[in-house]
Amino acid sequence: MSRNVTEKLIAAHLASGEMRPGEEIGLRIDQALIQDATGTMVMLELEALALDRVRTEVAVQYVDHNLLQTDERNMADHVFLRSACRRFGIWHSRAGNGVSHPTHMQHFGVPGKTLAGSDSHTCAAGSLGMLAIGVGGLEVAMAMAGEPLFVTMPEVWGVRLTGALPPWVSAKDVILEMLRRHGVRGGVHRIIEYHGPALATLTAMDRHVIANMGAELGATTTVFPSDERVLEFLRSQGRAGDFTELLPDPGATYDLHDEIDLSTLEPLIARPGSPGDVIPVRQAAGEPVHQVVVGSSANPGLRDFAVVAETLRGRQVHPQVSLDVNPTSRQILTDLTKMGAITALIEVGARIHQTGCLGCIGMGQAPAVGRNSLRTFPRNFPGRSGTRDDSVWLCSPETAAAAALTGAITDPRDLGLDHPRVHLPATASAGTALLEPPLPVDQAREVELSKAPSIGSLPELDPLPDSLTLPVVLKVGDDISTDEIMPAGARALPYRSNIAALADFAFTQIDEDYPRRARDAGPHAIVAGRNYGQGSSREHAAIVPRYLGLRVVIAKSFARIHWQNLANFGVLPLEFTDESGYDTIGGELRLEGLRQAIENGTELTVNGMAVRHRLSPRQRAMVLAGGWIPLFRRSPARSPFS
Amino acid sequence: MSRNVTEKLIAAHLASGEMRPGEEIGLRIDQALIQDATGTMVMLELEALALDRVRTEVAVQYVDHNLLQTDERNMADHVFLRSACRRFGIWHSRAGNGVSHPTHMQHFGVPGKTLAGSDSHTCAAGSLGMLAIGVGGLEVAMAMAGEPLFVTMPEVWGVRLTGALPPWVSAKDVILEMLRRHGVRGGVHRIIEYHGPALATLTAMDRHVIANMGAELGATTTVFPSDERVLEFLRSQGRAGDFTELLPDPGATYDLHDEIDLSTLEPLIARPGSPGDVIPVRQAAGEPVHQVVVGSSANPGLRDFAVVAETLRGRQVHPQVSLDVNPTSRQILTDLTKMGAITALIEVGARIHQTGCLGCIGMGQAPAVGRNSLRTFPRNFPGRSGTRDDSVWLCSPETAAAAALTGAITDPRDLGLDHPRVHLPATASAGTALLEPPLPVDQAREVELSKAPSIGSLPELDPLPDSLTLPVVLKVGDDISTDEIMPAGARALPYRSNIAALADFAFTQIDEDYPRRARDAGPHAIVAGRNYGQGSSREHAAIVPRYLGLRVVIAKSFARIHWQNLANFGVLPLEFTDESGYDTIGGELRLEGLRQAIENGTELTVNGMAVRHRLSPRQRAMVLAGGWIPLFRRSPARSPFS
Repeated sequence: MSRNVTEKLIAAHLASGEMRPGEEIGLRIDQALIQDATGTMVMLELEALALDRVRTEVAVQYVDHNLLQTDERNMADHVFLRSACRRFGIWHSRAGNGVSHPTHMQHFGVPGKTLAGSDSHTCAAGSLGMLAIGVGGLEVAMAMAGEPLFVTMPEVWGVRLTGALPPWVSAKDVILEMLRRHGVRGGVHRIIEYHGPALATLTAMDRHVIANMGAELGATTTVFPSDERVLEFLRSQGRAGDFTELLPDPGATYDLHDEIDLSTLEPLIARPGSPGDVIPVRQAAGEPVHQVVVGSSANPGLRDFAVVAETLRGRQVHPQVSLDVNPTSRQILTDLTKMGAITALIEVGARIHQTGCLGCIGMGQAPAVGRNSLRTFPRNFPGRSGTRDDSVWLCSPETAAAAALTGAITDPRDLGLDHPRVHLPATASAGTALLEPPLPVDQAREVELSKAPSIGSLPELDPLPDSLTLPVVLKVGDDISTDEIMPAGARALPYRSNIAALADFAFTQIDEDYPRRARDAGPHAIVAGRNYGQGSSREHAAIVPRYLGLRVVIAKSFARIHWQNLANFGVLPLEFTDESGYDTIGGELRLEGLRQAIENGTELTVNGMAVRHRLSPRQRAMVLAGGWIPLFRRSPARSPFS
Repeated sequence: MSRNVTEKLIAAHLASGEMRPGEEIGLRIDQALIQDATGTMVMLELEALALDRVRTEVAVQYVDHNLLQTDERNMADHVFLRSACRRFGIWHSRAGNGVSHPTHMQHFGVPGKTLAGSDSHTCAAGSLGMLAIGVGGLEVAMAMAGEPLFVTMPEVWGVRLTGALPPWVSAKDVILEMLRRHGVRGGVHRIIEYHGPALATLTAMDRHVIANMGAELGATTTVFPSDERVLEFLRSQGRAGDFTELLPDPGATYDLHDEIDLSTLEPLIARPGSPGDVIPVRQAAGEPVHQVVVGSSANPGLRDFAVVAETLRGRQVHPQVSLDVNPTSRQILTDLTKMGAITALIEVGARIHQTGCLGCIGMGQAPAVGRNSLRTFPRNFPGRSGTRDDSVWLCSPETAAAAALTGAITDPRDLGLDHPRVHLPATASAGTALLEPPLPVDQAREVELSKAPSIGSLPELDPLPDSLTLPVVLKVGDDISTDEIMPAGARALPYRSNIAALADFAFTQIDEDYPRRARDAGPHAIVAGRNYGQGSSREHAAIVPRYLGLRVVIAKSFARIHWQNLANFGVLPLEFTDESGYDTIGGELRLEGLRQAIENGTELTVNGMAVRHRLSPRQRAMVLAGGWIPLFRRSPARSPFS
């Protein structure tokens, strides 16, 4: 039987279930990745689960989100995370080492392996022929404990690439073209697998750009084959020994099909508000620009910075523009300095920032209201930049460089310049990882967790009652992102290790009064449109509303990660059987005989209206118990550590 | 008559008064310097004064403080500042160009000139044989308008330097020795002038280190001669033509004397809480360290970073330590990359931050509570770091590097290493300033100020009533800094252009309830101990309490800049004739026949107790009018623009 790469990866890791789209499958997990904004909660979960030592082949904690340190909380978290790494046998990547995704790719990525990460852009590792899935923190904690990762078996969407990219068009424009065609819901319940002759023209880091923003299509993940270009990348890292070829079998088929001729692409740009609102750059040409930011996991590569440096070299950034450069890993920053690219960027007028996510998660770099900001980032959900009425556009490094030069949105082909040739070193700088390995077991057991008073605990979660009367405290539209449910950014992120303090920020981007109303109401419900909970993997978007009393969300549809996070923390996610129910529902919801109904089937009745759930038996059990942790505690026999 | 350098500088710029210590003198100002945290208010003042164009030879706006951009306010301020520069004929130094003091020294510093700056470390330019004085924003605005700068003629304190610094001891240890000997009030009403044979061993940038932290001694400013080492510096900047020799006359005398034999110095460190609490590093050796920060105007030079890079090269930062590197100017960062020092720092594990003040003014880099942070900064007032219970030590780059390596406070002489030889380029990188020159007058007049809604206006200030009954809303001890009166840092600084919003932060480091009590009380008084208002030049520390109703401060003594700022904004600064009055005063103060008393003499009676003011006739007029701006508005004939 001919298999595509996705099927090979899944088959090699299948712990339970069958590979039929829509079925729940369990996957054995080889590697785990966490970052500091979600990692503090993961460490508290490991503590709550009484884990002694992680069981994945590799587990890495990256400190890349909370880097501004505007008060004592960030550093208290950093100290806590390092102590937890030492306690549980986890690699520690200190602040300044880089954004998790490119750093993981450089130092730990291995073709054929599975990776679970508490960050929605974990899928970027698909660039190396890995099956890499972004999930909530609790699932990563369970994977670290040796439990399978459970996902709904998606459809495999084969995207055939032909041709070659023209000058001034790069990998970012490929994924922007996918978003232009299919929008932010186009990949839901799908794995995107790229194939075809044009793959030979795309480096592993180009593929990282495309795989990373598969998250913006709502895809479960993105998969590339492991081929000569992957070997080339691993060789540049001094890790050729980690290479395994992983290609689709001849005659492999896909559940769905699409094709892109790269030679027909032009520079594209996502308009403010959504990564899915994509137009050709020329349609927006002339719009004044006050800020240009390059970096993030969506354009992390040496090439992406070098092309900006070479386009601007010997010229000067427009005096109206702040050109902000966010290096993505210690290794990349080292190589950029050795290549002279950093010197060039400084001399043309750039601001070189510390290595990390920074403005991509609203951690500084907020633009002024109404001033256009062009970014090579993956997301531009409203307010994610830290500015409520922001105007953030997403584009390639080439388009970013053009705007930095002219002070206006500009198709880089219209600069009248030659597309710069970028000469990258064949071998990346070695010894720049500064990764702290896990402690030996006997030393690890002696380590005490360093918990500052600013670090909270997990809330206690009670079982789902059999009958509920719930006021609808909030009703929202389509495509609500976890940035809107649980804001990140410089104000809220320092509280990521403290659910009680974080509660004051829930939904405040949409409705400032939600925390007060939720507290007043106690047990309550939320009603939502399509693709509820898109974007980031933060489980805080489930835990915090649950802490405030949320018991049921009824939506037209859910984004994958958030749907699972709701179940993990005992919030019942329901879908309208008939979407028109959305228009009339409101006031108070009455749910009776709830536990029986969930156990027996998928249909329920709310105020006389039919709704359904898509929970697996495993998920039903955790929702009934009030969440996965209370379920685990109640049934220690089911413990992965027993 | 033999004159010292200070006397020569003052005599050459004397516009009014006589050079007798204690007398008010007016100085003609050649250059003006503002930064963004104080500059927004200066621009609003220029607007309120209806200035058409600045009249100093050079005026420069540096954007170096508010760089984190955690919300839209910072960038809105940056856009406003640039528009104001274009309107009023001011040079604009964009974000990323560097900290004002080293950047000004590199591109504008000229021996023999006077410089007024709305930053307390403006005195750093004394390193080039300038008379450089940090004052409140309104005084800089008036100086920009062509008015003299009025100061009390200080005593001149000659400090003779002999010998040469031993290995691992550097300029920072010289100024720490001054602080060890004399404390934070040792320089009040004095100008410190360094002379003697050891000057030949100190570069202009070494002298910058010493002059900069003269502010911490409370000195009016610090003066170095302009000699061969200054020529060397200007030549390295391609500005040898700006050199003028300026030496003390043979036989020149000083009002006060001190002497330091550099060869006897050892590495010193200021303990948490005050730059004046200095001990030998060895006395604190072994204290665990979690953070080391290098940079700031107190150690801004190429040498200061290079010595850290060379000490650490090929080694690795202790895994417990965050080594934060804050480059101080675009030129220095360029040269550090060209020298390979940045690559070395990245490879050993440093975090390279954007160019600017950053943690030095509590703009990020806040340490965890109770974790020691070693910094090459000038100040460690409690809470200035952004962490309420911080533990910040001040030291040289050598001592900082030693702690980064060992994870504990370490005398660098005890590392067992050779003091690294640092080879600096003879010529600094050119073309790295990216300074935007003033617009021609006719174009400037067309420019409109870009005022976002987050930018406020100056409050209206009413005249001083003849009788007042004032509750004492706050009573504080000695050495209260402007950081405690009007906190900077990441939370408060974004509001620097909005007095009403800033009011919620006044005194909250000391007493969270002050803003509420002040608002309830309306007109009120504050009682303070010695050296009230030390530290930063921020006039917000006068404007904001005045906005909340402050009319009178009675203190044992005042720091120079804040005392003038109080008068500028119509707050009456009074001193106890008998300091024991401090112990009994409180409750409600009754002041009668106030206007007559101020006009006629220096003595007043409060609740039967004698107090005095030290206001000049000029200052009396502004206090009676409610401040300098209402005085100016009432008497347009006195306008500098008439």
